[in-house]
Amino acid sequence: MRSFLSERAKNTGKSSIREILEISKKPGVISFAGGLPKPETFPFEDLAEAARRQIGENYRQSLQYGITEGVIEFRKEMIDWLSNFGWSIKLDNIIATNSSQQALDLVSKAFLDPGDVLFCGLPTYAGAIQSFQLFQARSVGVPMESDGMNLNVLEEEIRRVERTGRQAKFVYVIPDFQNPTGVTMSGRKRKKLVKIAMEYDLLIIEDTPYFGLRFEGQEERPINAYDNEGRVITMSSLSKVLSAGMRLAVVVGPENLIDALVTVKQATDLCTSTTTQWIALEWMQNHELSEHLAQARSHYRQNRNVILEALERFFPDDERITWTRPEGGLFIWVTLPEGVNTDELLFDALENKVAFVPGSGFYVNDGGKNSMRLCYSVLQPDEINEGIKLLAEVVRRHLSAASPAREE
Amino acid sequence: MRSFLSERAKNTGKSSIREILEISKKPGVISFAGGLPKPETFPFEDLAEAARRQIGENYRQSLQYGITEGVIEFRKEMIDWLSNFGWSIKLDNIIATNSSQQALDLVSKAFLDPGDVLFCGLPTYAGAIQSFQLFQARSVGVPMESDGMNLNVLEEEIRRVERTGRQAKFVYVIPDFQNPTGVTMSGRKRKKLVKIAMEYDLLIIEDTPYFGLRFEGQEERPINAYDNEGRVITMSSLSKVLSAGMRLAVVVGPENLIDALVTVKQATDLCTSTTTQWIALEWMQNHELSEHLAQARSHYRQNRNVILEALERFFPDDERITWTRPEGGLFIWVTLPEGVNTDELLFDALENKVAFVPGSGFYVNDGGKNSMRLCYSVLQPDEINEGIKLLAEVVRRHLSAASPAREE
Repeated sequence: MRSFLSERAKNTGKSSIREILEISKKPGVISFAGGLPKPETFPFEDLAEAARRQIGENYRQSLQYGITEGVIEFRKEMIDWLSNFGWSIKLDNIIATNSSQQALDLVSKAFLDPGDVLFCGLPTYAGAIQSFQLFQARSVGVPMESDGMNLNVLEEEIRRVERTGRQAKFVYVIPDFQNPTGVTMSGRKRKKLVKIAMEYDLLIIEDTPYFGLRFEGQEERPINAYDNEGRVITMSSLSKVLSAGMRLAVVVGPENLIDALVTVKQATDLCTSTTTQWIALEWMQNHELSEHLAQARSHYRQNRNVILEALERFFPDDERITWTRPEGGLFIWVTLPEGVNTDELLFDALENKVAFVPGSGFYVNDGGKNSMRLCYSVLQPDEINEGIKLLAEVVRRHLSAASPAREE
Repeated sequence: MRSFLSERAKNTGKSSIREILEISKKPGVISFAGGLPKPETFPFEDLAEAARRQIGENYRQSLQYGITEGVIEFRKEMIDWLSNFGWSIKLDNIIATNSSQQALDLVSKAFLDPGDVLFCGLPTYAGAIQSFQLFQARSVGVPMESDGMNLNVLEEEIRRVERTGRQAKFVYVIPDFQNPTGVTMSGRKRKKLVKIAMEYDLLIIEDTPYFGLRFEGQEERPINAYDNEGRVITMSSLSKVLSAGMRLAVVVGPENLIDALVTVKQATDLCTSTTTQWIALEWMQNHELSEHLAQARSHYRQNRNVILEALERFFPDDERITWTRPEGGLFIWVTLPEGVNTDELLFDALENKVAFVPGSGFYVNDGGKNSMRLCYSVLQPDEINEGIKLLAEVVRRHLSAASPAREE
């Protein structure tokens, strides 16, 4: 029998991160690998009650097909919640999707032909890389800085791509507490990015799954709020704040682009689950998401503090080792000296009963080999301390092996 | 601003059926258009109870991310249910998807390059046409007969495509109570279709969303059960039997092809809703789907009987007018004399307060113009009678206008 695979499918590998997550589930391993929210931060009791009522009493809507755009009442509740962030949205500018990952799939479908170019962070979310790769696009990486993507390099890269004659379509950014670095894009860069998109006639795909999980510093307005031309498409998810299992997200953008996404969504899954939309919307009608999130924010802040202290305390005192200081979200990014290979380091870490995700999985080029993502969301403080201690031992060994310690 | 649309998106129109469904929602219109299940046939009270328990007590699983293949316990319950149809399935051969429409999307993604060919019924499910079109494939139509696709024509078409040098990938069939015709493929043709797939090295995509909704005649084994070579991928949905809103389906097939679907699903939406999977599986653990369906089957049988009698009673006595006699499912297919145009007839029907879906939307060529799909699932018997009476008046007018009545 021949292979029936499309070029697209041949082009796509299984996620290496997924394999790592499987391995890191071994009993006794302290894992900083998975990017999971802590389920105890979800309002499960009230959601259970909402589910009972919605399915038992509103079954004509909650168990039936719905419109492709998403349940109107759900979209209105999401508009309400997003208005907290200085953002005014009309009903025709927002649709419900089956998770942000689906929103990426719809964006890829609607806008990417094979060979088309998009720009993304170095590093960036691995699931986005996978989606763009599936649609045979070229992802061009732009280095991340402590206040977001380096926009000078972005402009250089845009010009370079223009000279090749390829179609550049969009810049993909995760402006808040980026996965994997934890970095937030500054207001100045958000404004500038919109200008760049105008100048070079590009779209911006703004992915903000950690919205509402800021536990420090000043809230930034979404990039979308700076857009007057209809160039920004924003995806925001309930997976980290209300429930990952319900797979609910929204996409906000100009009507013509949203309309293109609706057309491809029709062929993709007809509609997002009305059951989960009705459960979520009833909960949102009766509760303030912002208030509910106070507890989640406090939990994530505490864990972030613990991991920062543990890194300070246990990691080798070497100025070539740096890490980010996230103001929200779930991730910290650690950079080790050049020459250290975290793909290899992971094997030793697993032997030492600790896991993380090596940086290379978040790079669209061959960079990131000396970096790692640490997720601090689901662990207990003492596990974080113990895990960082175990990891530090392995890092210390690799440090001396990989490159001679500098003289000080 | 330029258009950012991909060729794929430019190639895809909004579903005309969707527009018709919108129009047919006008108050006072009796609609045979929508292909909706009757929500009263869903076990909403028990599902509500299962939802309350699963979300309230099993939130660590039901509100968290799950594996891409689907919740193991859910897949086991589906294996149990499908075993009623003479079908033995292993865990590695089944995955959960976010509806059968998503299963089509995954199949298109994994197997179709632009220009690739697939074969489908004339007519066939419009959502499948849309999915294949989105991936820029060529759908070649094969006429439907009263016992399923005309397999002689299928072979001729396969040979014709072989001569063009194009890649033919699969045959797409809905063997049970097909949407839109209501026709069931005979056992003889199922066997023969598998032989044809072997001879010409093709896959078979078997789409069976009305499984369990047979109310008359002998159950046929799935095409998949005749396959010894690993050429058949079957998608089966819970949308018509347990809840359309939960968006749950499964795909069954050989491990290597299922594996390809899992890889593309990862990039598509990470995983199917664990919330709805846990609700459904708890319900299935405590109830027999087959028993529960007795009521739904009886309801659909009754409505089928009413519509058959009404057609007999009210439609013009003209032997050029024929309709199918479905043994299950939701649809009847009416063929009017050549020259009658149901796209035009629909306008007059709507004026006469009755709606249906014109046949042309289910054709991948320009055929079907003298046919219509009637869905009898959600109406009351008196509405069916009144609706067919109203429709018959319009048909009678178009009959005399389009072609002179034959002499008898």
